[in-house]
Amino acid sequence: MGYPETTDAFAVTDIKNWSTFTRKELPLKKFEEHDVDIAIDACGVCASDVHTITGGWGEDIPLPLCVGHEIIGKAVKVGSKVKDIKVGDRVGVGAQIYADLTCENCKSDNENYCPNQVDTYGAKYPDGTITQGGYSSHVRAHEYFTFKIPESIETAIAAPMLCAGLTVFSPLKRLGAGPGKKVAIVGLGGLGHFGVLFSVALGAETYVLSHSPKKKEDALKMGAKDFIVTGEENWAENWKFKFDFIINAADATDRFVLSDYFSTLKVNGTFHNVGYPDKPLSGLMVQAFAPTGCSFGASHIGSRPEMLEMFELASKLNIKSWVETIDISEEGCKSAVERVYKNDNVRYRLTLTGYDKIFGKRD
Amino acid sequence: MGYPETTDAFAVTDIKNWSTFTRKELPLKKFEEHDVDIAIDACGVCASDVHTITGGWGEDIPLPLCVGHEIIGKAVKVGSKVKDIKVGDRVGVGAQIYADLTCENCKSDNENYCPNQVDTYGAKYPDGTITQGGYSSHVRAHEYFTFKIPESIETAIAAPMLCAGLTVFSPLKRLGAGPGKKVAIVGLGGLGHFGVLFSVALGAETYVLSHSPKKKEDALKMGAKDFIVTGEENWAENWKFKFDFIINAADATDRFVLSDYFSTLKVNGTFHNVGYPDKPLSGLMVQAFAPTGCSFGASHIGSRPEMLEMFELASKLNIKSWVETIDISEEGCKSAVERVYKNDNVRYRLTLTGYDKIFGKRD
Repeated sequence: MGYPETTDAFAVTDIKNWSTFTRKELPLKKFEEHDVDIAIDACGVCASDVHTITGGWGEDIPLPLCVGHEIIGKAVKVGSKVKDIKVGDRVGVGAQIYADLTCENCKSDNENYCPNQVDTYGAKYPDGTITQGGYSSHVRAHEYFTFKIPESIETAIAAPMLCAGLTVFSPLKRLGAGPGKKVAIVGLGGLGHFGVLFSVALGAETYVLSHSPKKKEDALKMGAKDFIVTGEENWAENWKFKFDFIINAADATDRFVLSDYFSTLKVNGTFHNVGYPDKPLSGLMVQAFAPTGCSFGASHIGSRPEMLEMFELASKLNIKSWVETIDISEEGCKSAVERVYKNDNVRYRLTLTGYDKIFGKRD
Repeated sequence: MGYPETTDAFAVTDIKNWSTFTRKELPLKKFEEHDVDIAIDACGVCASDVHTITGGWGEDIPLPLCVGHEIIGKAVKVGSKVKDIKVGDRVGVGAQIYADLTCENCKSDNENYCPNQVDTYGAKYPDGTITQGGYSSHVRAHEYFTFKIPESIETAIAAPMLCAGLTVFSPLKRLGAGPGKKVAIVGLGGLGHFGVLFSVALGAETYVLSHSPKKKEDALKMGAKDFIVTGEENWAENWKFKFDFIINAADATDRFVLSDYFSTLKVNGTFHNVGYPDKPLSGLMVQAFAPTGCSFGASHIGSRPEMLEMFELASKLNIKSWVETIDISEEGCKSAVERVYKNDNVRYRLTLTGYDKIFGKRD
């Protein structure tokens, strides 16, 4: 077997050995008229990949599983009804690969909340095929979830925008980031660094909240106005009623004293989460929301129009995410996910590249 | 001692005997030029009174304490700078009695979030005086927190609007209740029944969510479109992505399966709390917010402009809250707070009246 029936994938076969990748041929869904086949050239390494393969978000994952949902490659086959993508185009696929496109949510540009949405890996298509991600030679995607990448953005830098970038860009837009707004980003990691870059690009006065002062210099380079160390005692005292909203890109929220963060919000402000901890929130009293009348919310990636707007803005303003590349291989995948798990000097995103060396040229 | 130095109050002296009221003279703050003295004629019995005197919201309460923050009476003395209130006016005081009126929050009609705000009872004025509530002969209030009551609304009915009414009216307005919106009210108690009355009055399609079917008939009488029994298995299945927002007027939220409620919200909808449980939320995963991209928030009473708008609407549409009156006395206060505590057939609000019989005519 091989493409077009299967993809040549680096897969996890056991959550106990979650950083051991084994090369396997895994089935692709049946090719349909709206589908695009992509020969993959790069894939970002997302914290979701690690939460998934370690069982942190739930141990019931389909194995063997190939993760990766920040995929860039070349269209090598397009279905008869595909409109905007031609064979040879450089295209990307993010964390969502399918939706019914007919429900109320889909019709209102909320296809990321479609009840029939399918994640790019580890999910089941209506026909029962399990989706497999981008640590592999090929992916088959519905055209609606396939995006042409602007020429000015290089592949390794574009890849992490497809999940991490969109995941922060969407709430920044929906919560109204722009001139006159004060936005705080909690956690300067993969998601957080996009939060800073995009919040600044949208014109908001942007602050970074981090438990240690280690990344201050980087934050200021990205355009942050100030850097607030939440590991210091009474850190919130100087920031009461300051921020229109907070984007929390950290996934340690279960260990936060949320009332401190809430106290830094303007009246009716929002503490918005894009990082998902493995554990429940503990000890949160409804009373903690009263002093500012604030809200605590979360979102799930973003919509196609938001993806297009993000790439347009990034291209126009020449926004460069901070990316380190690692060649894909058993060892490369292992090293990448272990570094993300341990938060081992990832500044601020890893992209797997060098696909041709492993998988050959694929046309 | 006596008025004008003190108020003749029914006070709790011990949280272990929280329903035993003792008549005591308690000091009033120094009279200042913006103050209004009110001879009280009625006071609503709020669940806050019970949470406070039982120690449910914290055992550190100043004793002896006179609760009650839904106060109606007659202005008997007005300070030299008071503008809109004359001696003899029928006026009300809600749950807030003071704010600095100079901070950013106050200047933006968010004086209910003023960092220097003072609650109507159990709080400390800048001069150290403890505020005492409306289960008493008199209250002294800043004019900004004193409201003329429209003639068409009778005293016993107007009283509970001052806290319960405003507490739901404010988030209904801020979250945009109106024609074309679908609003759900959780819990048909004192707060919830105002939620239904005002949501309907504002033009929203209004639903009631309640753990049992007992109050269905009442809800429909109040104008609800439908009544959803959350005690039934899989109750949320038929209501996916239905409501623009939910106002949770119950205070048992710590025992809710919140993900079920969240699933009934439209994308980016809000689950908004006006009831405050004595216990923290338990087991809430950030992931529960992802399927609808929703938020969980809370608010603290409302602003003066919202109070004025609420009374105007209630007067115009002749909105009648469902109120039972009880004569004030040691026994009356005891019976009232015990019934609210046990939720003993309170449909839907109790107002203490008959003040002249106990305190005499006060001019």
